[in-house]
Amino acid sequence: MELLKERIRQDGTVKGNDVLKVDSFLNHQMDVALFEEIGREFQRRFADCGVNKLLTIEASGIGIACVTAQFFHCPVVFAKKSQTKNIAGEVYTTKVESFTHGRVYDVIVSKKFLGPEDTVLIIDDFLANGAALEGLIDLVNQSGARLAGAGVVIEKAFQPGGDRIRAGGIRVEALARVKAMSEERGVEFAD
Amino acid sequence: MELLKERIRQDGTVKGNDVLKVDSFLNHQMDVALFEEIGREFQRRFADCGVNKLLTIEASGIGIACVTAQFFHCPVVFAKKSQTKNIAGEVYTTKVESFTHGRVYDVIVSKKFLGPEDTVLIIDDFLANGAALEGLIDLVNQSGARLAGAGVVIEKAFQPGGDRIRAGGIRVEALARVKAMSEERGVEFAD
Repeated sequence: MELLKERIRQDGTVKGNDVLKVDSFLNHQMDVALFEEIGREFQRRFADCGVNKLLTIEASGIGIACVTAQFFHCPVVFAKKSQTKNIAGEVYTTKVESFTHGRVYDVIVSKKFLGPEDTVLIIDDFLANGAALEGLIDLVNQSGARLAGAGVVIEKAFQPGGDRIRAGGIRVEALARVKAMSEERGVEFAD
Repeated sequence: MELLKERIRQDGTVKGNDVLKVDSFLNHQMDVALFEEIGREFQRRFADCGVNKLLTIEASGIGIACVTAQFFHCPVVFAKKSQTKNIAGEVYTTKVESFTHGRVYDVIVSKKFLGPEDTVLIIDDFLANGAALEGLIDLVNQSGARLAGAGVVIEKAFQPGGDRIRAGGIRVEALARVKAMSEERGVEFAD
Protein backbone atom coordinates (compact mmCIF):
# COMPACT_ATOMS: atom_id res chain seq x y z
CA MET A 1 0.00 0.00 0.00
CA GLU A 2 1.97 2.94 -1.38
CA LEU A 3 0.28 5.68 0.68
CA LEU A 4 1.21 3.85 3.88
CA LYS A 5 4.80 3.22 2.82
CA GLU A 6 5.22 6.89 1.94
CA ARG A 7 3.87 7.84 5.33
CA ILE A 8 6.28 5.47 7.09
CA ARG A 9 9.20 6.88 5.09
CA GLN A 10 8.13 10.42 5.92
CA ASP A 11 7.05 10.17 9.56
CA GLY A 12 8.46 6.88 10.88
CA THR A 13 11.63 6.87 12.95
CA VAL A 14 14.04 3.96 13.26
CA LYS A 15 15.74 3.43 16.64
CA GLY A 16 18.58 0.94 16.68
CA ASN A 17 17.99 -1.92 14.27
CA ASP A 18 14.58 -3.14 15.28
CA VAL A 19 12.41 -0.34 16.69
CA LEU A 20 10.21 1.49 14.18
CA LYS A 21 8.39 4.38 15.85
CA VAL A 22 5.17 5.28 14.07
CA ASP A 23 3.55 6.91 17.07
CA SER A 24 2.73 10.15 15.24
CA PHE A 25 0.11 8.48 13.04
CA LEU A 26 -0.48 4.83 13.98
CA ASN A 27 -0.26 3.86 17.64
CA HIS A 28 -0.27 6.86 19.96
CA GLN A 29 -1.53 9.72 17.83
CA MET A 30 -3.81 8.14 15.25
CA ASP A 31 -4.54 9.53 11.80
CA VAL A 32 -8.06 8.27 11.19
CA ALA A 33 -8.06 9.49 7.57
CA LEU A 34 -5.15 7.10 6.99
CA PHE A 35 -7.03 4.42 8.95
CA GLU A 36 -9.89 4.78 6.45
CA GLU A 37 -7.53 3.99 3.58
CA ILE A 38 -6.11 1.08 5.57
CA GLY A 39 -9.60 -0.25 6.26
CA ARG A 40 -10.60 0.10 2.62
CA GLU A 41 -7.51 -1.88 1.58
CA PHE A 42 -8.12 -4.68 4.11
CA GLN A 43 -11.69 -4.93 2.85
CA ARG A 44 -10.45 -5.11 -0.76
CA ARG A 45 -8.04 -7.93 0.12
CA PHE A 46 -10.51 -9.94 2.19
CA ALA A 47 -13.68 -9.22 0.20
CA ASP A 48 -15.84 -12.29 -0.43
CA CYS A 49 -14.29 -14.19 2.50
CA GLY A 50 -17.56 -14.03 4.44
CA VAL A 51 -15.99 -12.07 7.32
CA ASN A 52 -18.61 -11.25 9.96
CA LYS A 53 -16.33 -10.30 12.86
CA LEU A 54 -12.99 -8.58 13.34
CA LEU A 55 -10.75 -9.61 16.22
CA THR A 56 -7.92 -7.47 17.57
CA ILE A 57 -5.98 -7.02 20.80
CA GLU A 58 -5.79 -4.00 23.04
CA ALA A 59 -4.67 -1.34 22.80
CA SER A 60 -3.19 -0.15 19.55
CA GLY A 61 -5.12 -2.52 17.28
CA ILE A 62 -8.50 -1.21 18.40
CA GLY A 63 -8.68 2.03 16.44
CA ILE A 64 -7.55 0.42 13.19
CA ALA A 65 -9.99 -2.46 13.66
CA CYS A 66 -12.95 -0.16 14.39
CA VAL A 67 -12.39 1.95 11.27
CA THR A 68 -11.78 -1.20 9.20
CA ALA A 69 -15.02 -2.73 10.52
CA GLN A 70 -16.96 0.11 8.91
CA PHE A 71 -15.94 -1.32 5.53
CA PHE A 72 -16.91 -4.87 6.51
CA HIS A 73 -20.17 -3.74 8.19
CA CYS A 74 -19.46 -6.02 11.13
CA PRO A 75 -18.56 -5.70 14.82
CA VAL A 76 -15.09 -5.78 16.38
CA VAL A 77 -14.10 -7.87 19.37
CA PHE A 78 -10.92 -6.93 21.17
CA ALA A 79 -8.98 -9.43 23.23
CA LYS A 80 -8.15 -8.10 26.69
CA LYS A 81 -4.92 -8.35 28.58
CA SER A 82 -6.34 -9.75 31.75
CA GLN A 83 -5.47 -8.39 35.16
CA THR A 84 -8.19 -10.09 37.11
CA LYS A 85 -9.05 -13.69 37.76
CA ASN A 86 -11.70 -14.87 35.35
CA ILE A 87 -14.30 -17.45 36.11
CA ALA A 88 -13.36 -20.67 34.32
CA GLY A 89 -15.64 -21.42 31.43
CA GLU A 90 -16.69 -17.86 30.62
CA VAL A 91 -13.70 -16.87 28.51
CA TYR A 92 -11.27 -18.26 25.99
CA THR A 93 -7.79 -17.61 27.31
CA THR A 94 -4.27 -17.76 25.95
CA LYS A 95 -0.85 -16.43 26.85
CA VAL A 96 1.03 -13.78 24.87
CA GLU A 97 4.60 -12.75 25.51
CA SER A 98 5.25 -9.04 25.08
CA PHE A 99 8.84 -8.47 24.07
CA THR A 100 8.34 -4.71 24.40
CA HIS A 101 7.25 -4.97 28.01
CA GLY A 102 9.22 -8.08 28.97
CA ARG A 103 6.33 -10.03 30.40
CA VAL A 104 3.66 -12.61 29.61
CA TYR A 105 0.01 -11.61 29.55
CA ASP A 106 -3.10 -13.70 29.92
CA VAL A 107 -5.26 -12.63 27.00
CA ILE A 108 -8.98 -13.32 27.05
CA VAL A 109 -12.11 -13.11 24.94
CA SER A 110 -15.59 -13.74 26.28
CA LYS A 111 -17.15 -16.89 24.87
CA LYS A 112 -20.28 -14.87 24.20
CA PHE A 113 -18.62 -13.03 21.34
CA LEU A 114 -16.81 -15.70 19.33
CA GLY A 115 -18.14 -19.08 18.23
CA PRO A 116 -18.50 -21.65 15.43
CA GLU A 117 -20.96 -19.39 13.56
CA ASP A 118 -18.28 -16.71 13.03
CA THR A 119 -15.82 -16.05 10.22
CA VAL A 120 -13.07 -13.95 11.73
CA LEU A 121 -10.50 -11.56 10.32
CA ILE A 122 -7.74 -10.69 12.78
CA ILE A 123 -6.48 -7.08 12.61
CA ASP A 124 -3.37 -5.67 14.29
CA ASP A 125 -0.95 -2.81 13.85
CA PHE A 126 2.35 -4.74 13.91
CA LEU A 127 3.57 -8.24 13.11
CA ALA A 128 7.13 -8.99 14.23
CA ASN A 129 7.87 -12.10 16.26
CA GLY A 130 4.24 -13.16 15.88
CA ALA A 131 3.40 -13.74 19.54
CA ALA A 132 0.29 -11.54 19.62
CA LEU A 133 -1.03 -12.88 16.33
CA GLU A 134 -0.48 -16.51 17.38
CA GLY A 135 -2.35 -15.78 20.61
CA LEU A 136 -5.29 -14.40 18.66
CA ILE A 137 -5.24 -17.39 16.29
CA ASP A 138 -5.32 -19.69 19.32
CA LEU A 139 -8.42 -17.86 20.64
CA VAL A 140 -10.16 -18.22 17.26
CA ASN A 141 -9.31 -21.93 17.16
CA GLN A 142 -10.63 -22.47 20.68
CA SER A 143 -13.91 -20.83 19.69
CA GLY A 144 -14.47 -23.06 16.67
CA ALA A 145 -14.81 -20.01 14.42
CA ARG A 146 -13.47 -20.03 10.87
CA LEU A 147 -10.39 -17.87 10.40
CA ALA A 148 -10.37 -15.88 7.16
CA GLY A 149 -6.84 -14.64 7.89
CA ALA A 150 -4.98 -11.76 9.43
CA GLY A 151 -4.48 -8.20 8.24
CA VAL A 152 -1.58 -6.32 9.73
CA VAL A 153 -0.57 -2.77 8.96
CA ILE A 154 3.21 -3.17 9.26
CA GLU A 155 5.16 -6.42 9.13
CA LYS A 156 8.78 -6.54 10.19
CA ALA A 157 9.56 -9.15 7.56
CA PHE A 158 13.10 -9.57 8.90
CA GLN A 159 11.62 -11.10 12.06
CA PRO A 160 10.28 -14.65 11.96
CA GLY A 161 6.59 -14.26 12.88
CA GLY A 162 5.07 -13.73 9.44
CA ASP A 163 6.89 -16.59 7.73
CA ARG A 164 6.12 -19.02 10.55
CA ILE A 165 2.41 -18.16 10.63
CA ARG A 166 2.06 -18.33 6.83
CA ALA A 167 3.84 -21.71 6.91
CA GLY A 168 1.02 -22.87 9.19
CA GLY A 169 -1.46 -22.23 6.39
CA ILE A 170 -2.82 -18.90 7.66
CA ARG A 171 -3.35 -16.13 5.13
CA VAL A 172 -1.52 -13.02 6.38
CA GLU A 173 -1.81 -9.74 4.50
CA ALA A 174 0.58 -6.96 5.50
CA LEU A 175 0.07 -3.50 4.01
CA ALA A 176 3.73 -2.57 4.43
CA ARG A 177 6.45 -5.21 4.72
CA VAL A 178 9.74 -3.91 6.11
CA LYS A 179 12.67 -5.92 4.76
CA ALA A 180 15.39 -4.09 6.66
CA MET A 181 15.86 -0.92 8.65
CA SER A 182 18.58 1.08 10.33
CA GLU A 183 19.01 4.55 11.76
CA GLU A 184 21.39 5.44 8.93
CA ARG A 185 19.43 4.13 5.96
CA GLY A 186 15.88 4.27 7.27
CA VAL A 187 13.32 1.73 6.16
CA GLU A 188 13.54 -0.61 3.15
CA PHE A 189 10.37 -2.34 2.05
CA ALA A 190 10.17 -5.91 0.77
CA ASP A 191 8.00 -5.13 -2.24
CA MET B 1 -29.47 9.99 22.77
CA GLU B 2 -32.49 7.75 22.48
CA LEU B 3 -30.91 5.07 20.24
CA LEU B 4 -28.19 4.53 22.83
CA LYS B 5 -30.59 4.39 25.77
CA GLU B 6 -32.71 1.82 23.94
CA ARG B 7 -29.62 -0.25 23.30
CA ILE B 8 -28.59 -0.09 26.96
CA ARG B 9 -32.10 -1.13 28.04
CA GLN B 10 -32.06 -3.99 25.54
CA ASP B 11 -28.51 -5.34 25.80
CA GLY B 12 -27.05 -3.89 29.01
CA THR B 13 -26.91 -6.02 32.15
CA VAL B 14 -26.87 -4.69 35.69
CA LYS B 15 -24.78 -6.59 38.25
CA GLY B 16 -25.30 -5.62 41.86
CA ASN B 17 -26.02 -1.91 42.23
CA ASP B 18 -23.15 -0.34 40.38
CA VAL B 19 -21.87 -2.55 37.55
CA LEU B 20 -23.43 -1.96 34.14
CA LYS B 21 -22.17 -4.50 31.63
CA VAL B 22 -22.35 -3.22 28.07
CA ASP B 23 -19.67 -5.51 26.73
CA SER B 24 -21.82 -6.83 23.89
CA PHE B 25 -21.78 -3.50 22.02
CA LEU B 26 -19.52 -0.94 23.72
CA ASN B 27 -16.36 -2.14 25.39
CA HIS B 28 -15.48 -5.73 24.47
CA GLN B 29 -17.52 -6.45 21.38
CA MET B 30 -17.96 -3.10 19.64
CA ASP B 31 -20.86 -2.16 17.38
CA VAL B 32 -19.23 0.32 15.03
CA ALA B 33 -22.56 1.25 13.40
CA LEU B 34 -23.65 2.46 16.84
CA PHE B 35 -20.27 4.18 17.26
CA GLU B 36 -21.01 6.13 14.07
CA GLU B 37 -24.22 7.47 15.60
CA ILE B 38 -22.34 8.26 18.82
CA GLY B 39 -19.65 10.10 16.87
CA ARG B 40 -22.22 12.06 14.89
CA GLU B 41 -23.91 13.12 18.13
CA PHE B 42 -20.64 14.22 19.79
CA GLN B 43 -19.85 16.24 16.70
CA ARG B 44 -23.28 17.86 16.80
CA ARG B 45 -22.85 18.82 20.46
CA PHE B 46 -19.30 20.15 20.08
CA ALA B 47 -19.60 21.67 16.60
CA ASP B 48 -18.04 25.13 16.28
CA CYS B 49 -15.80 24.58 19.31
CA GLY B 50 -12.69 24.52 17.13
CA VAL B 51 -11.78 20.97 18.16
CA ASN B 52 -8.64 19.81 16.34
CA LYS B 53 -7.72 16.79 18.47
CA LEU B 54 -9.53 14.09 20.42
CA LEU B 55 -7.95 12.66 23.55
CA THR B 56 -8.94 9.34 25.09
CA ILE B 57 -7.43 6.66 27.31
CA GLU B 58 -6.70 3.05 26.52
CA ALA B 59 -8.30 0.70 25.97
CA SER B 60 -12.06 0.98 25.64
CA GLY B 61 -12.15 4.66 24.69
CA ILE B 62 -10.04 4.18 21.58
CA GLY B 63 -12.62 2.70 19.22
CA ILE B 64 -15.27 5.28 20.08
CA ALA B 65 -12.75 8.11 19.74
CA CYS B 66 -11.49 6.90 16.34
CA VAL B 67 -14.96 6.67 14.85
CA THR B 68 -15.90 10.03 16.41
CA ALA B 69 -12.75 11.62 14.95
CA GLN B 70 -14.05 10.87 11.46
CA PHE B 71 -16.80 13.42 12.09
CA PHE B 72 -14.36 16.02 13.45
CA HIS B 73 -11.79 15.34 10.69
CA CYS B 74 -9.01 15.37 13.24
CA PRO B 75 -6.57 12.89 14.81
CA VAL B 76 -6.97 10.99 18.08
CA VAL B 77 -4.34 10.75 20.80
CA PHE B 78 -4.74 8.02 23.37
CA ALA B 79 -3.19 8.28 26.80
CA LYS B 80 -1.25 5.16 27.72
CA LYS B 81 -1.19 3.29 30.97
CA SER B 82 2.54 3.21 31.42
CA GLN B 83 4.41 0.06 32.35
CA THR B 84 7.87 1.30 31.57
CA LYS B 85 10.04 4.06 32.92
CA ASN B 86 9.74 7.11 30.76
CA ILE B 87 12.47 9.62 30.19
CA ALA B 88 11.62 12.75 32.14
CA GLY B 89 10.63 15.62 29.93
CA GLU B 90 9.32 13.61 26.99
CA VAL B 91 5.83 12.94 28.30
CA TYR B 92 3.07 14.53 30.31
CA THR B 93 2.24 12.18 33.15
CA THR B 94 -0.52 11.84 35.70
CA LYS B 95 -1.90 9.19 38.02
CA VAL B 96 -5.29 7.52 37.61
CA GLU B 97 -6.86 5.19 40.13
CA SER B 98 -8.74 2.28 38.59
CA PHE B 99 -11.49 1.15 40.92
CA THR B 100 -12.23 -1.80 38.64
CA HIS B 101 -8.68 -3.11 38.86
CA GLY B 102 -7.85 -1.84 42.35
CA ARG B 103 -4.64 -0.08 41.41
CA VAL B 104 -3.14 3.25 40.41
CA TYR B 105 -1.72 3.71 36.92
CA ASP B 106 0.76 6.19 35.61
CA VAL B 107 -0.89 7.59 32.51
CA ILE B 108 1.19 9.34 29.88
CA VAL B 109 0.93 11.31 26.66
CA SER B 110 3.91 12.25 24.54
CA LYS B 111 4.56 16.00 24.54
CA LYS B 112 4.88 15.79 20.77
CA PHE B 113 1.15 15.27 20.37
CA LEU B 114 -0.47 17.83 22.68
CA GLY B 115 0.40 21.50 23.06
CA PRO B 116 -0.85 25.10 23.33
CA GLU B 117 -1.89 25.10 19.67
CA ASP B 118 -4.51 22.39 20.30
CA THR B 119 -8.20 22.52 21.17
CA VAL B 120 -9.01 19.17 22.70
CA LEU B 121 -12.19 17.19 23.16
CA ILE B 122 -11.83 14.30 25.61
CA ILE B 123 -13.78 11.14 24.70
CA ASP B 124 -14.40 8.13 26.93
CA ASP B 125 -16.87 5.30 27.28
CA PHE B 126 -17.79 5.70 30.97
CA LEU B 127 -17.87 8.46 33.56
CA ALA B 128 -18.46 7.27 37.13
CA ASN B 129 -16.14 8.41 39.91
CA GLY B 130 -14.33 10.67 37.44
CA ALA B 131 -10.77 9.49 38.06
CA ALA B 132 -9.92 8.75 34.42
CA LEU B 133 -11.50 11.96 33.16
CA GLU B 134 -9.72 14.08 35.77
CA GLY B 135 -6.44 12.46 34.77
CA LEU B 136 -7.04 13.35 31.13
CA ILE B 137 -8.00 16.91 32.07
CA ASP B 138 -4.75 17.16 34.04
CA LEU B 139 -2.79 16.07 30.96
CA VAL B 140 -4.54 18.69 28.81
CA ASN B 141 -3.81 21.39 31.40
CA GLN B 142 -0.14 20.40 31.57
CA SER B 143 0.10 20.72 27.80
CA GLY B 144 -1.32 24.23 27.67
CA ALA B 145 -3.98 23.11 25.20
CA ARG B 146 -7.49 24.55 25.31
CA LEU B 147 -10.10 22.07 26.57
CA ALA B 148 -13.38 22.17 24.66
CA GLY B 149 -14.93 19.66 27.05
CA ALA B 150 -15.54 15.98 27.48
CA GLY B 151 -17.90 13.63 25.69
CA VAL B 152 -18.74 10.41 27.48
CA VAL B 153 -21.03 7.69 26.23
CA ILE B 154 -22.50 6.60 29.58
CA GLU B 155 -22.46 8.58 32.81
CA LYS B 156 -23.33 6.91 36.08
CA ALA B 157 -24.96 10.07 37.37
CA PHE B 158 -25.44 8.53 40.81
CA GLN B 159 -21.67 8.58 41.26
CA PRO B 160 -19.94 11.86 42.00
CA GLY B 161 -17.55 12.30 39.07
CA GLY B 162 -19.74 14.18 36.63
CA ASP B 163 -21.06 16.73 39.13
CA ARG B 164 -17.62 17.41 40.53
CA ILE B 165 -16.04 17.94 37.12
CA ARG B 166 -18.88 20.16 35.88
CA ALA B 167 -18.57 22.19 39.10
CA GLY B 168 -14.98 22.83 38.05
CA GLY B 169 -16.24 24.62 34.96
CA ILE B 170 -15.67 21.80 32.46
CA ARG B 171 -18.36 21.10 29.90
CA VAL B 172 -19.27 17.40 30.10
CA GLU B 173 -21.74 15.90 27.64
CA ALA B 174 -23.01 12.40 28.40
CA LEU B 175 -25.11 10.63 25.78
CA ALA B 176 -26.85 8.45 28.37
CA ARG B 177 -27.07 9.48 32.03
CA VAL B 178 -27.98 6.64 34.38
CA LYS B 179 -29.82 7.95 37.43
CA ALA B 180 -30.19 4.62 39.20
CA MET B 181 -29.88 0.94 38.47
CA SER B 182 -30.48 -2.42 40.07
CA GLU B 183 -30.69 -6.04 39.01
CA GLU B 184 -34.42 -6.04 39.70
CA ARG B 185 -35.44 -2.81 38.01
CA GLY B 186 -32.70 -2.44 35.40
CA VAL B 187 -31.52 1.01 34.35
CA GLU B 188 -33.28 4.33 34.94
CA PHE B 189 -32.08 7.31 32.96
CA ALA B 190 -31.85 10.85 34.30
CA ASP B 191 -33.47 12.51 31.30
